[in-house]
Amino acid sequence: MKITTPTLLIDEEKARRNIRRMAEKAQENGATFRPHFKTHQSADVGKWFWEEGIRQITVSSVSMAYYFASAGWEDITIAFPYNPLEHVAIEQLAQTIHLNLLVTNKAGLDHLNAHVDASLGYFIKVDVGTHRTGVLPSEKEEIKRMADSKNPKHQLKGLLAHAGHTYRADAPNLVTPIFRGSMDAFAAVRNTISRHDLLISYGDTPSCSLLDSFPGVNEMRPGNFVFYDAMQYSFGVCTLEDIAVCMVCPVVALHPSRSEAVVYGGAVHLSKDQVRGETPHYGLVVRLTDRGWDPNPVAHLDRLSQEHGIVKGSNEFIDALRVGDLIGILPVHSCLTADLQGSYLSLDGQQLAKLTK
Amino acid sequence: MKITTPTLLIDEEKARRNIRRMAEKAQENGATFRPHFKTHQSADVGKWFWEEGIRQITVSSVSMAYYFASAGWEDITIAFPYNPLEHVAIEQLAQTIHLNLLVTNKAGLDHLNAHVDASLGYFIKVDVGTHRTGVLPSEKEEIKRMADSKNPKHQLKGLLAHAGHTYRADAPNLVTPIFRGSMDAFAAVRNTISRHDLLISYGDTPSCSLLDSFPGVNEMRPGNFVFYDAMQYSFGVCTLEDIAVCMVCPVVALHPSRSEAVVYGGAVHLSKDQVRGETPHYGLVVRLTDRGWDPNPVAHLDRLSQEHGIVKGSNEFIDALRVGDLIGILPVHSCLTADLQGSYLSLDGQQLAKLTK
Repeated sequence: MKITTPTLLIDEEKARRNIRRMAEKAQENGATFRPHFKTHQSADVGKWFWEEGIRQITVSSVSMAYYFASAGWEDITIAFPYNPLEHVAIEQLAQTIHLNLLVTNKAGLDHLNAHVDASLGYFIKVDVGTHRTGVLPSEKEEIKRMADSKNPKHQLKGLLAHAGHTYRADAPNLVTPIFRGSMDAFAAVRNTISRHDLLISYGDTPSCSLLDSFPGVNEMRPGNFVFYDAMQYSFGVCTLEDIAVCMVCPVVALHPSRSEAVVYGGAVHLSKDQVRGETPHYGLVVRLTDRGWDPNPVAHLDRLSQEHGIVKGSNEFIDALRVGDLIGILPVHSCLTADLQGSYLSLDGQQLAKLTK
Repeated sequence: MKITTPTLLIDEEKARRNIRRMAEKAQENGATFRPHFKTHQSADVGKWFWEEGIRQITVSSVSMAYYFASAGWEDITIAFPYNPLEHVAIEQLAQTIHLNLLVTNKAGLDHLNAHVDASLGYFIKVDVGTHRTGVLPSEKEEIKRMADSKNPKHQLKGLLAHAGHTYRADAPNLVTPIFRGSMDAFAAVRNTISRHDLLISYGDTPSCSLLDSFPGVNEMRPGNFVFYDAMQYSFGVCTLEDIAVCMVCPVVALHPSRSEAVVYGGAVHLSKDQVRGETPHYGLVVRLTDRGWDPNPVAHLDRLSQEHGIVKGSNEFIDALRVGDLIGILPVHSCLTADLQGSYLSLDGQQLAKLTK
């Protein structure tokens, strides 16, 4: 298969290794592994999880839940606050699969109880310090009301949190105190409700990658780890060898006087997420090989516009490039890069399906 | 039409007014109007240009050129450096429409001459100071070689520049000196080639919006102006009333203690482009009305993750919101926001087609 335009390569072996390692870690901890599929959004990549024995998944939207339900997944948690405006679609979906929703407030639960008739489970979203959304442990009255479903068909399954504040440059130093703080927050909410049978669902990629032990956690929900990316690498969360995706880009111009090359590959292919720090960048440039890519970066993506990427490297690297060459870019944020693709390409030239808009 | 998920509304009246105003400005200047269609990527929006008498367009990729060719456009410039790897697709396209390419270096031109047989035009890309790509006026030997097509079927049509360095907070003060500098650069390149019949193609949205007179310019190629956005507004390039797109987002959570609300609408709907400055933001929050939206911002999008947007506003504004409400967000960068959509919605509930991946 000849690549002529920006194309996201997936190294199946690396992705499967990432999946297996995380599945084993969950098993060792006696926790259910419910990976987040928002990163890949692919029925084909989903099969690699299925083959590891995984049957429960997480998604971030109702449409993504429909996509994976039609690919055969029957136990799905939508880890995004219940959107009252989608109650009809939720009702229909809950009639065909085992669906769990996320409730962040009493108003949402009231609406759910009044407008959705099908059986489903729900989790209370707990704010463990990220302050994106969720109920704070101090909001005791709200928590009590959210635990009281009033609808026998809607079963409170547990408490769920996303510790997004681990997505930081010093992740290895952060994950343990954040984990402890999160467990304290869960315990406080459980005490408020006086229910000790509730599942505790946790799991951002930095925590799940860096910690070995998760006492008190019943369910792990990382997503990014299947591909990892240059941002996780910059956080110290993964190695370069773990990164399972690489954007192949054609070189279209050379500007040796400023040690730059221009590639076909911009914001509409990679997204605008940036790794900050000493050398801020929009992706790490790697050399392609017969069987994928050499994981060691040789340059970086310094700037990007809609379709252009500006590579900055050593004189030696730029001088050796030719217009018409292909180079690889390890994306900064694989979730957003993957979201921008119509499909993926495996190393043996197979097109992998992806949910499209 | 009931909106239940993040949906990009287009106000056709505003977009048509933006188109008409720019078409008139080009006409007053005796310049061809060759708008850049990478902003909307929509055959339906394209019709609004067609109805203004426009027949020549600009796109940023070969696939976009195919899309608009199949929608009936017969004179298309691909304003992205010639990508040798796409020569087969270019050959086929050039056999069916009048195609212009962009050449940024002698290596690209040599490849084009050797591998593409169909008749086509080409422009030399001049770097007028943005330093993204293009030939510098000082690179005289390279310029001479690029002007010498050697293939009688490939006609040098003119010189083309994108003054992307006008995309700055002080755009109104920048556009005149940048315009003069660009014209000097064009003149220098023209002198090197000793050809004074070459077309001069210019046209970023800040310059084309803020300047009235374009002496020496034969062709204007702005793109963003059809929709404008919060970034152009922050640059002083457009008014709030000019912005023709608005992302409608469901409110899913309220956090009055920190004057925040959470909407369904994140990086995969809006992109991660940010307006910097005193109050950095990812979008301006507006109220929806029966006929679109009130253009005056009442809050801003403070943070976003993959599907979540965090709105920050006054206590009064947040207190009046309810879970299940819809609010509007004027996007920061309409080109990238539009690129993320599967389609658009007109104010009268019609779905507008868009190129998808």
